[in-house]
Amino acid sequence: MFQCRYRTSIAMSLFAFLIWASLIFSPVTAQQPQPPTYDPKLISEIKAIQKAALESDYAYRQLAHLSNNIGARLSGSPQAQKAVEYTASELRKLGLEVKLEKVMVPHWVRGEETGALVEYPHMAPGTTQKVVLTALGGSVATPANGLTAEVVVVNNFDELTALGRRRVEGKIVLFNAKFDQRLADNGLSGEAYGQSVIYRGVGASAAARLGAVAALNRSSGGADYRLPHTGAMRYANDAPKIPAASVTAEDADMMADLAAQGRVRMRLLLTPQTLPDAVSYNVVADLKGSEHPEQIVIVSGHLDSWDLGTGAVDDGAGCVMAMQTVQLLKQLRLRPKRTIRVVLWMNEENGLMGARTYANDHKNEMANHFAALEADAGAGRPMGFYAAGKPEILTLLQPLATILQTQGAGVTRLVDDTGADISVLTPFGVPTFAPLQDTRTYFHYHHTAADTLDKVDPRDLQENCAVVATLIYTLASMPQQLPR
Amino acid sequence: MFQCRYRTSIAMSLFAFLIWASLIFSPVTAQQPQPPTYDPKLISEIKAIQKAALESDYAYRQLAHLSNNIGARLSGSPQAQKAVEYTASELRKLGLEVKLEKVMVPHWVRGEETGALVEYPHMAPGTTQKVVLTALGGSVATPANGLTAEVVVVNNFDELTALGRRRVEGKIVLFNAKFDQRLADNGLSGEAYGQSVIYRGVGASAAARLGAVAALNRSSGGADYRLPHTGAMRYANDAPKIPAASVTAEDADMMADLAAQGRVRMRLLLTPQTLPDAVSYNVVADLKGSEHPEQIVIVSGHLDSWDLGTGAVDDGAGCVMAMQTVQLLKQLRLRPKRTIRVVLWMNEENGLMGARTYANDHKNEMANHFAALEADAGAGRPMGFYAAGKPEILTLLQPLATILQTQGAGVTRLVDDTGADISVLTPFGVPTFAPLQDTRTYFHYHHTAADTLDKVDPRDLQENCAVVATLIYTLASMPQQLPR
Repeated sequence: MFQCRYRTSIAMSLFAFLIWASLIFSPVTAQQPQPPTYDPKLISEIKAIQKAALESDYAYRQLAHLSNNIGARLSGSPQAQKAVEYTASELRKLGLEVKLEKVMVPHWVRGEETGALVEYPHMAPGTTQKVVLTALGGSVATPANGLTAEVVVVNNFDELTALGRRRVEGKIVLFNAKFDQRLADNGLSGEAYGQSVIYRGVGASAAARLGAVAALNRSSGGADYRLPHTGAMRYANDAPKIPAASVTAEDADMMADLAAQGRVRMRLLLTPQTLPDAVSYNVVADLKGSEHPEQIVIVSGHLDSWDLGTGAVDDGAGCVMAMQTVQLLKQLRLRPKRTIRVVLWMNEENGLMGARTYANDHKNEMANHFAALEADAGAGRPMGFYAAGKPEILTLLQPLATILQTQGAGVTRLVDDTGADISVLTPFGVPTFAPLQDTRTYFHYHHTAADTLDKVDPRDLQENCAVVATLIYTLASMPQQLPR
Repeated sequence: MFQCRYRTSIAMSLFAFLIWASLIFSPVTAQQPQPPTYDPKLISEIKAIQKAALESDYAYRQLAHLSNNIGARLSGSPQAQKAVEYTASELRKLGLEVKLEKVMVPHWVRGEETGALVEYPHMAPGTTQKVVLTALGGSVATPANGLTAEVVVVNNFDELTALGRRRVEGKIVLFNAKFDQRLADNGLSGEAYGQSVIYRGVGASAAARLGAVAALNRSSGGADYRLPHTGAMRYANDAPKIPAASVTAEDADMMADLAAQGRVRMRLLLTPQTLPDAVSYNVVADLKGSEHPEQIVIVSGHLDSWDLGTGAVDDGAGCVMAMQTVQLLKQLRLRPKRTIRVVLWMNEENGLMGARTYANDHKNEMANHFAALEADAGAGRPMGFYAAGKPEILTLLQPLATILQTQGAGVTRLVDDTGADISVLTPFGVPTFAPLQDTRTYFHYHHTAADTLDKVDPRDLQENCAVVATLIYTLASMPQQLPR
């Protein structure tokens, strides 16, 4: 998944800040908080970690195994269980204390999924026009033989409301909201996603309230290769549960064109099943701290993925960055002052039950959760890191940013959210972090069959590991406390 | 489809030629053939056609109808028949003499197609790893329940030969030849295609000769969105007919990775059918010439498409350029001296039976075929035109190229082949032509489900129509004969 991150009133790059500061403050009156001076030993350790990360292929090999040997890891699947066992075993090999912390997860299983236009203007006799689509996670099924209904196309909720019950009842509603790739191309991929994903999330219930028999949404993502993007949806309590699927951008365009010409009827078959909740696990692995073992710095990704691809980008990449972090410290024989806890979350995609269970199970230890990082935006080239918390945090980490700038990753930015799983720690005041990455193409592959190993560039992954590992080691070793 | 075009010893851009000529010849000894001077009336007519083409939406509207209202048009399908009837009707509306010329075409129908790895190293119990694939046109079916066999991966025919019958017999062979996008990015997409498509074309029989039970090839095309590319294959007479399919680039990578680790077994199900040959038609529509009605200038595209997409790029675009050519002349009340014949070929993709039948039916009129153009490389921005024939042809057309340069489309280049359908005219000495287009992304969509209307930029299509229509009108109106 992915979160909208920006705290617009505060978010400001270091670069922008310096320009702004140079304009506002005269040299005499400048009263900027001063970054601390790191101990030379810590500096040299950070540099050693960075260098080793940029030379290591450990993360990529782990990612290849997760993607190719295990594959898609939807919550409740045998592959998700295999991934739990595999990563726990690998983390034990590194000498960590590994626990599998039980989580009850939703168990939704995709079935058949086909769509076809069976009536539209000027149709060739005896034909249908295929509609490429994929069921949304959590969707109920159509009747076993499918359903056939007229299609109405709307671009947003206002247009749906304007149609009213009389023109929606008994119909299939297509929400045709385009993903704004221009935003994504300008570093605003979270905003682009947020604008369109709302129809995936709650469109079905909005349509059902007006009597629709099924809901479709234009896939929430960029690139146009007739790829449907799946993802989670939620049924509201006040609306009937109707089947819901994403169609590709191309199919949305085609249906909108034909519906503008006249009556369009569609046959839709979806046969997913929601099975009883399943037992699964967060993988929790501790590298004990030397001075403050009770203080915990979490480094994490989510182990579950959607079922269409092999979950390399979302979020195998984040998991292996976390694994690489502790592997590097073992390789370099570095022991942090605080405990570094690798958490490979279960069920980020369709329930967040891993994070919620963790927050509940560990609620009495939250004061000792020093910081947490989740990498869940793919493996695009890192340019720095995000922090959610007090602004002073970035000042305390400025010496690290200066080192990371040697690889072009020295930008720091304050945001509201960093990662879905670690957002459960925010109410407890835990500062959270994420790498600041190039996400221009992240939503090309997100939640699609094309989320596969080849989408991760090994060099970019190394650079991300360098950012994550040095940031985690710094957090676990810095003498200061972080303000909360 | 698409042809490799370059006559390497002769192919040279005008620009390169001018540089070369300026280096080789001194001004005193230069003895270049001189372009003719066109009649001012012809010049103004060409400019009027160009201007009208750049302002018209006729071609795009026709393309939208072919793609969205009719859809995929594989030979023998109801959609192909509908496309014959529809375009014939549209050409009659323009006042042309339209004939449907009968062609017997192969009638191959896609069925189910699934692939899954059922055994490989470190596999999660109770799982499979999905393989995204699509049957090749002409492939026989697997047994009704599919077949399961070990996979061997080779990068080329030499590696297959080196394996020998002992290591191929009973196996599924995967030809893992990569499409070289770097070539395509440098204007050499035909070469990139040619290098990889050979395994699609004849790989199955090569594998079958060594006892393979099925053949797979890495999709012949660029871009990586887990899109399989279909296309024609041919069985040799000396080999058993085994099922053949294209896997996506991603699946080829995954299978190669797993096969390098150990034994990989795959279940493959393909249920295509080859039905008896079907009756179909070339659409042949004449705009009679005023002075030499017996002399024919063909402007053409192919009406059939593959069945996965809606055939917008391959080759709805070429068809509508041909239709737009005569529409513009009607709109501008221009009558060519020679007859302009729109031909919408049937069965370019899997048999070339339309072209072959035309060449046979019209063999006694070939001396009167003045020239022929086929547009079959999508609708990427045009930069000029190709000619196959004597070099003097380009000199005769230089004044046209000068006009087209006002839209950045003045490059001319001599090649061996211009289009698959019109290649049947070459043995009769007929000069042939094609627009010279930006094809860098053509093979991203070629023969895939993503060959849909949105892939055609309306402005680029207008620019192509301007090139095709002015070239055809010039050929049909120029006082000179073309050397043959």
